[in-house]
Amino acid sequence: MTSETGSLEAYLDEHRERRHAAYLDFLRIPSISGIPDHAGDCRRAAEFLADQLREAGAENVEVCETGGHPVVYADRLHAPGAPTVVVYGHYDVQPVDPIDEWVTAPFEPFIADGRVVGRGAADDKGQIQIHVRALEAILATRGELPVNIRYVFEGEEESSSEHLDAWLEGNRWRLGADIAVISDTGFFDGNRPAITVALRGVAAVEIHVQGAPRDLHSGQFGGTVHNPLNALCEIVAALKGPDGRIRVPGFYDDVVALTDEDRAAFAALPFDDEEYRTSVGVPALYGEVGYTTLERRGARPTLDLNGIWGGFQGAGGKTIIPASAHAKITCRLVADQDPDRIIELLRAYVLQVAPPGVTVRVDAEGGGRPSLTPIDHPATRAAARAIAATFGVEPLYIREGGSIPVTASFTSILGLPVVLLGFTNDDDHAHAPNESMVLANVETGIRTIAACWDELAATGVDGLGA
Amino acid sequence: MTSETGSLEAYLDEHRERRHAAYLDFLRIPSISGIPDHAGDCRRAAEFLADQLREAGAENVEVCETGGHPVVYADRLHAPGAPTVVVYGHYDVQPVDPIDEWVTAPFEPFIADGRVVGRGAADDKGQIQIHVRALEAILATRGELPVNIRYVFEGEEESSSEHLDAWLEGNRWRLGADIAVISDTGFFDGNRPAITVALRGVAAVEIHVQGAPRDLHSGQFGGTVHNPLNALCEIVAALKGPDGRIRVPGFYDDVVALTDEDRAAFAALPFDDEEYRTSVGVPALYGEVGYTTLERRGARPTLDLNGIWGGFQGAGGKTIIPASAHAKITCRLVADQDPDRIIELLRAYVLQVAPPGVTVRVDAEGGGRPSLTPIDHPATRAAARAIAATFGVEPLYIREGGSIPVTASFTSILGLPVVLLGFTNDDDHAHAPNESMVLANVETGIRTIAACWDELAATGVDGLGA
Repeated sequence: MTSETGSLEAYLDEHRERRHAAYLDFLRIPSISGIPDHAGDCRRAAEFLADQLREAGAENVEVCETGGHPVVYADRLHAPGAPTVVVYGHYDVQPVDPIDEWVTAPFEPFIADGRVVGRGAADDKGQIQIHVRALEAILATRGELPVNIRYVFEGEEESSSEHLDAWLEGNRWRLGADIAVISDTGFFDGNRPAITVALRGVAAVEIHVQGAPRDLHSGQFGGTVHNPLNALCEIVAALKGPDGRIRVPGFYDDVVALTDEDRAAFAALPFDDEEYRTSVGVPALYGEVGYTTLERRGARPTLDLNGIWGGFQGAGGKTIIPASAHAKITCRLVADQDPDRIIELLRAYVLQVAPPGVTVRVDAEGGGRPSLTPIDHPATRAAARAIAATFGVEPLYIREGGSIPVTASFTSILGLPVVLLGFTNDDDHAHAPNESMVLANVETGIRTIAACWDELAATGVDGLGA
Repeated sequence: MTSETGSLEAYLDEHRERRHAAYLDFLRIPSISGIPDHAGDCRRAAEFLADQLREAGAENVEVCETGGHPVVYADRLHAPGAPTVVVYGHYDVQPVDPIDEWVTAPFEPFIADGRVVGRGAADDKGQIQIHVRALEAILATRGELPVNIRYVFEGEEESSSEHLDAWLEGNRWRLGADIAVISDTGFFDGNRPAITVALRGVAAVEIHVQGAPRDLHSGQFGGTVHNPLNALCEIVAALKGPDGRIRVPGFYDDVVALTDEDRAAFAALPFDDEEYRTSVGVPALYGEVGYTTLERRGARPTLDLNGIWGGFQGAGGKTIIPASAHAKITCRLVADQDPDRIIELLRAYVLQVAPPGVTVRVDAEGGGRPSLTPIDHPATRAAARAIAATFGVEPLYIREGGSIPVTASFTSILGLPVVLLGFTNDDDHAHAPNESMVLANVETGIRTIAACWDELAATGVDGLGA
């Protein structure tokens, strides 16, 4: 233990009770962003957090108006030449329904059996507390941070981050940085320390197939015109092969191939196909040949129908050839696929395979970029060393199949590589009743964040840009 | 002109005014079977018709209770050794909406420009009048019919013939016959005399595809499980080939192939593909290779989706892998396809092509048999000769793409070959405002029916069975 680490430990030991009490106070504020009646609570949580940041030693602390719930901004920029980090978290929480399934009141938090229990304990107030306390402890014991930090804590993550992008755009002037650290993810099954290195993006389209301008009698017209529903099925079936691969020409062109290290990282994740299959409740798993289940989920793009409709859906029968058929499709994308390009490729292919006798239209419905900060990225390496030094084990590397839209915002708007460094346990019940955070994750997490800032400082601006 | 024909003409000439007046009286009764308030009118129409039949010379005239609107039964069975014919028509009519589009009141009929105008003029009261007046004129001029006839005039055809099948079942004892003549069809475009020789049947199924028991997050699960919507599309796409042929093994086994005479009859129908395409409003016609549009519609089976649904259909997006997907499918069948067998073949094939990872169920949703009384059937030949003798042209032969459920009832319940001998003009506006019947069709139709009874008598029971 270095003397610096020794001082940090002593400080954190000394202030444990106060720290935990404030964490619980933060959780008592029902800052549910999705329920308008809680707007005042969201603002209270923002003010509470701003006060905490000021007390910890952050500067330029501001509760910023966004048009919705405020963003709390703060910074500490006294490490000239060292890397600058944007830290992101969110102080808003999910609603509490179904309230009957909570064992205790969601906003009367408590600590028991090594866990902090209450709405927001894990997602994401606990992670914000980690950052605030790391800041405080470093400043208290060393007088200054080894890196420059800008904190951005929003209040609308659980209600679509409606105003965040505009706020980021409008605040570029004070968001210059080398890297973003987003703490809104967690550990792998069994509470094993992990870094999320990739998130998938999305490209969404709707396909509209039109036949005659009105429904036709299936007896009087059946056999002489194409049926838009059959035609839509033919188009959709042409999108993927029996090997699970997407047949759209060029679709995979920009996919970053898995390295041996990537595949080893996937293989290192404890995962059992049969257990997974049973938990999902399907008769068999299904996906692209040549990849494992976790690779398919984390490192390969997909094409899924989210909805399909056309014609008669009620009870009984209606013998029509419906006028039109419709499908909503989203592709999950992986680095470096571009949503706009994927949509264009998809449109071209759909029009190419569309059968005669119908009119087909493909509407772009938006998208989001995938995110990948590779295992061998210097920032990932720095975070990994910090985890190993504090949790005592090398982290696992996770590629999430889903998207965290704010991640894409930090990359696309601010141009920053993102390290997803979060500390929640996998059984945290986020978004569900009886949310809880393993207190040891929070406590060790504070040390990890402190160590990470040192590791990033040691890497240096040039090292991060490598 | 024979003397018999001469007497008939004289009789019909003499009673023209009275006949037309009674036709209009029949049309004045608003016997709308689908509207409960008109139940009394339906009964009035039945009583009116029963009186007409008695006056014409029918025996055993009875207004039969059915549980719904009554069936009018009557017979005249004094031609021992001659064929027995069941004649079918319906005295009920369609509702009058949209009432604003009627130029005159729908139940205040009149004759103008050679047409009888009013609800039911064509469908089907006019055709019933043809039969009643043929009966009356033959009995008045010759004392007896050349064949035995049982009249069955129902009152629920426009509201699904709900009670007809049960009534037929319960009255088999008085429905023994050699052939059924159904007068509820009409002439071809341009008011060209025609006989409908075939109707298609139906086989209906629903396909249900189940994935996980609940909707899944398309990011967290996408790529690892099959999507029921995609799977359904794959199944549906496998049902038909790009040649428009249905790929279900055995599907075409029982289809009666078109003879050279059948194809010549199709080719004789005045029909223009481009005109049809434009009227339907599709970019191209589409169907089974090797057949003309009319053959595809009248003589070949089809497989059409009537409805498809699954997942999210609202505005915007919802990134789910839906739990289940559903499709309603009907096949139009042609002789001698059996609906139950087709459903079994379809079920077996769907289960065979179903991809792994989902559970697929095929539910039978009922069916109806196709009907075909070939051009060279002795009864068709007899009707054709009657048309040629009275209208002065050889009839065209039509195969309708749709189904007339009562036709299947007469075939499946009573085991009778059916001749669809109807006289409406193609521009009759049946089911629509300003319904009308060309009076000459009625007048000549009376002669045709009379001639047809003679032709059937000449053919004889043995000839009909050939």
